[in-house]
Amino acid sequence: MAREVVDAPPGPGLAAGAIASLARIRREAPRVHCLTNTVAQSLTANLLSAAGAIPSMSLAVDEIDHFIAGSAALLVNLGTLDEARRAAMTRAVAVAGEQGKPWVLDPVMVDRSPRRLEFARALLAHRPTVVRGNVAEMAVLAGRAGPGGLARAAGAVVAETGRVDRVSDGRHVIRITTGHPLMARVIGLGCAASALVAAFCAIEGDRLMATAQALFALGVAGELAGETAVGPASFQTALLDRLYVLDADTLAARGRIA
Amino acid sequence: MAREVVDAPPGPGLAAGAIASLARIRREAPRVHCLTNTVAQSLTANLLSAAGAIPSMSLAVDEIDHFIAGSAALLVNLGTLDEARRAAMTRAVAVAGEQGKPWVLDPVMVDRSPRRLEFARALLAHRPTVVRGNVAEMAVLAGRAGPGGLARAAGAVVAETGRVDRVSDGRHVIRITTGHPLMARVIGLGCAASALVAAFCAIEGDRLMATAQALFALGVAGELAGETAVGPASFQTALLDRLYVLDADTLAARGRIA
Amino acid sequence: MAREVVDAPPGPGLAAGAIASLARIRREAPRVHCLTNTVAQSLTANLLSAAGAIPSMSLAVDEIDHFIAGSAALLVNLGTLDEARRAAMTRAVAVAGEQGKPWVLDPVMVDRSPRRLEFARALLAHRPTVVRGNVAEMAVLAGRAGPGGLARAAGAVVAETGRVDRVSDGRHVIRITTGHPLMARVIGLGCAASALVAAFCAIEGDRLMATAQALFALGVAGELAGETAVGPASFQTALLDRLYVLDADTLAARGRIA
Repeated sequence: MAREVVDAPPGPGLAAGAIASLARIRREAPRVHCLTNTVAQSLTANLLSAAGAIPSMSLAVDEIDHFIAGSAALLVNLGTLDEARRAAMTRAVAVAGEQGKPWVLDPVMVDRSPRRLEFARALLAHRPTVVRGNVAEMAVLAGRAGPGGLARAAGAVVAETGRVDRVSDGRHVIRITTGHPLMARVIGLGCAASALVAAFCAIEGDRLMATAQALFALGVAGELAGETAVGPASFQTALLDRLYVLDADTLAARGRIA
Repeated sequence: MAREVVDAPPGPGLAAGAIASLARIRREAPRVHCLTNTVAQSLTANLLSAAGAIPSMSLAVDEIDHFIAGSAALLVNLGTLDEARRAAMTRAVAVAGEQGKPWVLDPVMVDRSPRRLEFARALLAHRPTVVRGNVAEMAVLAGRAGPGGLARAAGAVVAETGRVDRVSDGRHVIRITTGHPLMARVIGLGCAASALVAAFCAIEGDRLMATAQALFALGVAGELAGETAVGPASFQTALLDRLYVLDADTLAARGRIA
Repeated sequence: MAREVVDAPPGPGLAAGAIASLARIRREAPRVHCLTNTVAQSLTANLLSAAGAIPSMSLAVDEIDHFIAGSAALLVNLGTLDEARRAAMTRAVAVAGEQGKPWVLDPVMVDRSPRRLEFARALLAHRPTVVRGNVAEMAVLAGRAGPGGLARAAGAVVAETGRVDRVSDGRHVIRITTGHPLMARVIGLGCAASALVAAFCAIEGDRLMATAQALFALGVAGELAGETAVGPASFQTALLDRLYVLDADTLAARGRIA
């Protein structure tokens, strides 16, 4: 079993990469198809739009092939799961695999539902590009193997987000410390973060770095939003605004990765 | 048939109770499972989060038992009703009954659809802890018996909200006058109020008081939001922010109940 | 085949009409039933509410007749289409036709899905009052006939929105230049615009003018929002607020139509 190496602070490298990727997203406007829960759909779509990507959210099985064919990346988020969503997701990950499109699995609340955990494990067999979840979700999905073990077993980048984000490909771990406590109070922001990871994967071939860049940039937007927010609602508004206007100088200045 | 007594202004008592309950919600972070309409899901989840509770919104019948088992209270809201929601709700109220979990019925737009009114009446037989609706909804659901008669017949606390809220257990009525006219312009705020009532019921055993406290606190947040809002959208943002930062002194000062 | 005439700037006429219609919407509070996608539901409902209309969004086939019977206009939006939505829409447009209620078709992303395009064409046979879409959607739906040809073939007003909006009944075209670039960054704003068109059609019998008035008024609210917005999220908040407080003087002053 490989040892995971916590990378030395990549600092400028990560910030520089995030700057380049964000510029490409704004220029190329990649389409990201999102199979996601109804609670987070609006925030997810607006966060992708603020970053420069173009979201779509259709779930019908008889439309899914066309939507994925026209997209550069896919998000599969297990919130508000139902039969129609399961069918759409099963089809979608197969199509994404055939077409070589990167896709992100967000195993929302697998710690709350055995049936959902079982479904998440079935999806892992289709080799997601990235798996992103919080500590509780990752604890049950990765089990004793831990995020690094899950990354190796699934051949995926695994991102565990929280006060500090840890992004692993099973060999290296990047810790990301940008962010703000109010991010945990905005419902669906983790879901939207997974969609942003998908957008970065659409244009950056190194998926460990793409994932880290997305979470780093979102964390910087969160820090800026926290400077003016009164509470979680004004924070959400400010975060989307700040992501939209985020510039290279700000990203470079905040490039403090421990 | 019992006479309803309009309580003398409970003033400090209600405010003090709201302060204590809100402090407990923030400390204990009760989980509230919400079977609710897709229009109000995001606002409902964010309002619960702003108050300190933790929302979940899954609807799948094969997950519902686990989500309710892991929650301290349940919301059943009849908006955007469909077959899947009816099945999930029928199961959910049975499970909540078995587990002794408090649950709130929000009979959205039963005045607009005979089929929905019929379903709401079937749910009443499962003895909700609280029923909260607006005047038009309560008029058809309670009929000639009125809110107090409905409360006695269903063994529930009944809250009729509007410019003035009336909360009844069939014996006593508490009138709540906090609030702001723009609250009626925020779509889904009534739905979210029902979820907040569920959160208060999760930690306060006296459900007449729990319901009144939730509506009182939300009304105070609305009053504060109204002081700065330009229109309904900035009002919604401010209301969530104000609920998040609401403190004991403010609640005590606004404890004017007629 | 009729030639389309680009109207000379209707300026004061359009602004005056928008003022009168908005005043009636605020006074009469028409109900608008919306069969729309889950991503845009909240924004759509809140935009209708900000304008003074009353939204409902139920999709169940066994409730649809009652909801349409109680409404003054209908929106049919093809986003997040699924079997339940197709069934509800098929029933809804038949009922709207029988009851003589105006209805607006929003063919969201028909350019992305052949199956959806086919369904949109089937709905066109039920003679929508208005069809509103963006340039890409209209290009595939109208084909070589163009918006004017589609208007004549479907007996509908056709609105193609973008940087400049073009509203045609197949004989006349009204160009509307109010608006702001950030409108394109708010996900679901086009969907919500279609709902606003339905609200204007509920109270203005001249549907070419009703459509133009709705888009003109929304564009003015967008211009005002753009004066203070930092990014797309604060823009969305400001747009709803500005629509809510929009007054006759402002509309008249912005009545510049080219």
